[in-house]
Amino acid sequence: MSDIASEDMGPWLSPHDIEFIRRKAPMVYVTAVPVRVDTNGALEAIGTLLRANEGGKLVRELVSGRVFVQESLRAALIRHVERDLGAMAFPQLPASLTPFTVAEFFPLPEACGYYDPRQHAVSLCYIIPVSGECTPQRDVLELAWLTPQDLRDPDLLDEFVDGHAAIARQALAAAGVLR
Amino acid sequence: MSDIASEDMGPWLSPHDIEFIRRKAPMVYVTAVPVRVDTNGALEAIGTLLRANEGGKLVRELVSGRVFVQESLRAALIRHVERDLGAMAFPQLPASLTPFTVAEFFPLPEACGYYDPRQHAVSLCYIIPVSGECTPQRDVLELAWLTPQDLRDPDLLDEFVDGHAAIARQALAAAGVLR
Amino acid sequence: MSDIASEDMGPWLSPHDIEFIRRKAPMVYVTAVPVRVDTNGALEAIGTLLRANEGGKLVRELVSGRVFVQESLRAALIRHVERDLGAMAFPQLPASLTPFTVAEFFPLPEACGYYDPRQHAVSLCYIIPVSGECTPQRDVLELAWLTPQDLRDPDLLDEFVDGHAAIARQALAAAGVLR
Amino acid sequence: MSDIASEDMGPWLSPHDIEFIRRKAPMVYVTAVPVRVDTNGALEAIGTLLRANEGGKLVRELVSGRVFVQESLRAALIRHVERDLGAMAFPQLPASLTPFTVAEFFPLPEACGYYDPRQHAVSLCYIIPVSGECTPQRDVLELAWLTPQDLRDPDLLDEFVDGHAAIARQALAAAGVLR
Repeated sequence: MSDIASEDMGPWLSPHDIEFIRRKAPMVYVTAVPVRVDTNGALEAIGTLLRANEGGKLVRELVSGRVFVQESLRAALIRHVERDLGAMAFPQLPASLTPFTVAEFFPLPEACGYYDPRQHAVSLCYIIPVSGECTPQRDVLELAWLTPQDLRDPDLLDEFVDGHAAIARQALAAAGVLR
Repeated sequence: MSDIASEDMGPWLSPHDIEFIRRKAPMVYVTAVPVRVDTNGALEAIGTLLRANEGGKLVRELVSGRVFVQESLRAALIRHVERDLGAMAFPQLPASLTPFTVAEFFPLPEACGYYDPRQHAVSLCYIIPVSGECTPQRDVLELAWLTPQDLRDPDLLDEFVDGHAAIARQALAAAGVLR
Repeated sequence: MSDIASEDMGPWLSPHDIEFIRRKAPMVYVTAVPVRVDTNGALEAIGTLLRANEGGKLVRELVSGRVFVQESLRAALIRHVERDLGAMAFPQLPASLTPFTVAEFFPLPEACGYYDPRQHAVSLCYIIPVSGECTPQRDVLELAWLTPQDLRDPDLLDEFVDGHAAIARQALAAAGVLR
Repeated sequence: MSDIASEDMGPWLSPHDIEFIRRKAPMVYVTAVPVRVDTNGALEAIGTLLRANEGGKLVRELVSGRVFVQESLRAALIRHVERDLGAMAFPQLPASLTPFTVAEFFPLPEACGYYDPRQHAVSLCYIIPVSGECTPQRDVLELAWLTPQDLRDPDLLDEFVDGHAAIARQALAAAGVLR
């Protein structure tokens, strides 16, 4: 079993258990939109992760993952940022845990929200400035910083896994730099 | 088994299943703070529910409950408001599903968030104006409307189940009427 | 002097006075994004106003205007919505006056925000569901309801006065329906 | 003329001009709630300023002041934080300029908002983590860091100038630590 799969399931859930829970209840997720900001705090670029998906196709993603039982949202955000960007990324979590958006993922493509074939997940989305050095971890092939202008390119937006392009653009909107 | 218990578990989860899931993963909850507003939309009062808890003691609560698998947040909010306030409450859900706060409940009293002996729950909290007629349902003994001034009374705040007094006062703060 | 100009200046400011103030201090504005919502409160369409500008060209706008001295934000929002959409629009102001975005307009096109040749204005932007009948008022030639899909059309976005297309799309983002 | 007065009026406004504008239009203000956060970004304490008011009485304040014409909100926030806390405070402005609350100050004590005998001001309020060394500047006698627990003390809350205690407690609510 790959590192990804074991991480995704967490130390406390067997594949059987996670499958069972996914059929019965929505999963709590967090999504971090890593950003570079200027000295005044204004958003300059969004960090995106390039990975090969199970079919070998390159896909673009934000930092995202499950909240473990008895884990706080802050701890989950830091764990996922460090997992993907390394221990020197120095994420600056906001004082308020009100997310800029709540993304609903459903296993049926025709549902009202985003599509995740694995599960129903409710993901709380945060803009997280990172002031340190970000190094792609594990299966991340590349970390690419995209400007608000870059995020208008339809071809680039098509590279994102379902929902993440919309979340990235909603982050630009929340930061007042949607173009 | 009482109505509460069966409702709380939902149509799709046996007591055994919900116990299993609660040990393994955080639960997605929504909390609705029902409010009366004036003609300009300003908050006038918060609706609270009086119930007898399992020990027979009167406790005060907001509208709150679990999100079912494959249920949208909007559907869950409407279901819980109608369950507690009746079908004629006419809740007005906001256009944005960004909650005014996210309340984290943990089964260990010493954790950083609020205390829920049953489970780890992440509750997305919304201010929901209700313009219709609210009628206490099922096991709700009384629906009491409290003004911002009422919500300064320490005795009254002590009547709330854990976390709900803080959520009610955070709703006042979000509405700019915390006193 | 046209109706627009006298309204824009308000009952208490002469043209000389408003010119003086605009040179000296930023103006407080409110922007209302009128929306139609479904029975669950989800955004379906945004109301936009078509007007002829001073050069006779058709331009598209949101509801926007100055806050008068000693006027509350709620009163200003209702006044501007009724001015543009009529007394039967029945705007539903949110319980919280936290805007979904703050738009900064500057009289120099090269500044960091939006461009308003008349002034430096700080506009607090709100999504305002209108449940009643909206009738174009005064110089509004047409009230057009645009879906999230419509608001992807570059030609249509070009019709907006500066900043208003971005504000409309940020409203879609805040409502979780940016496409 | 004291340093305060000249700063308050800004380099471009004579006392006569600012008096004239205050009678005619609302003023744009920003309020910064300086905070210390822990390594996870959670709010630990709020920084408050102790000053002697014109009558010689000690009063407690947040960082607050006017936005100059053609000045961005970010520039105004940084200018006011540095004015009160010094150049080494290192304020971390949020990526989003959506305020946690908008405080309305009116010159009539009986109006719906807060009271400022000088003017009608609309103040956009932000939580601003400061990671550097804060040194009281100019007429600030002391910079006192208050915990969420401290901010329950009625005597201490009474020391704040009008509105600032409510804004400080709304900041605690937005940060999820209102006690």
